[in-house]
Amino acid sequence: MKIAIQDTYSDVASVCYGCGRLNEQGLQIKSYWEGEEVVCRFQPEPYHTAVAGYVFGGLIASLIDCHSTGTAAATAYKEAGREPGTDPPLRYVTASLFVEFLRPTSINNPMTIKAIVTKVEGRRATVSSELFVDNQLCVRGKVVVARMPEKWLQSLSSV
Amino acid sequence: MKIAIQDTYSDVASVCYGCGRLNEQGLQIKSYWEGEEVVCRFQPEPYHTAVAGYVFGGLIASLIDCHSTGTAAATAYKEAGREPGTDPPLRYVTASLFVEFLRPTSINNPMTIKAIVTKVEGRRATVSSELFVDNQLCVRGKVVVARMPEKWLQSLSSV
Repeated sequence: MKIAIQDTYSDVASVCYGCGRLNEQGLQIKSYWEGEEVVCRFQPEPYHTAVAGYVFGGLIASLIDCHSTGTAAATAYKEAGREPGTDPPLRYVTASLFVEFLRPTSINNPMTIKAIVTKVEGRRATVSSELFVDNQLCVRGKVVVARMPEKWLQSLSSV
Repeated sequence: MKIAIQDTYSDVASVCYGCGRLNEQGLQIKSYWEGEEVVCRFQPEPYHTAVAGYVFGGLIASLIDCHSTGTAAATAYKEAGREPGTDPPLRYVTASLFVEFLRPTSINNPMTIKAIVTKVEGRRATVSSELFVDNQLCVRGKVVVARMPEKWLQSLSSV
């Protein structure tokens, strides 16, 4: 995929603080296929600190959250043999988010998050991810996502 | 406690994006004792959306993260019979963060997060929390925190 999965979301579905391309105050994260993984890169701002030199864990949780729902969407389109963003939309919401901080994460260089769908059960999927800085594994994520309810999907269809 | 636990942290330990009183771009969350619980209230900004009308899950994870480390610190001081913020500092970092989204969380009214320490094992503690909007339970949190390493503690002592 040459464009980010988030850039295929319809306008009304693009207001998310984490990944909405139309949220000017948001993080506007982007997730791309790289081989069999979906990858997000993000350079934190200097104010995204926990203590000096290290990234705030809540920012990491936010990135893993949106990157996981994006990974689930990208994977669902791929499995269905469909172009990302085509209607009816395949979108996911987060049911639960687990983040394990293995070591302090340096704020100086970009973070790289690599994710894959590791389990699918009905409308739910599990997305497993690893976050690296300077090729060092810092954080693991495990996010259970659920297909967005029909009534939300209708309001979020391409407009 | 009449003042927030975060307002007893030393200056160098107050740069966190989530709870640092000196981080002007941050969320500056505050956690207070109310009876046997530690409580945080937060009104999201209009741009903290997931989809229109609902709060971004990463913001919720961020609040639960900082409120949990704050709850662990407040509880540690209380158990030790010490005034919050006195040296040597009792501070915690997040080892793992689990957030379960039970229902979409309305963005229109303040969120209230109530937390308690539910387990202590050596230098680790588990903080359990519930998030309410309009008295409706929306999110559950379970955060494992660890006492901050000595070398960090030294650099974070009151200056």
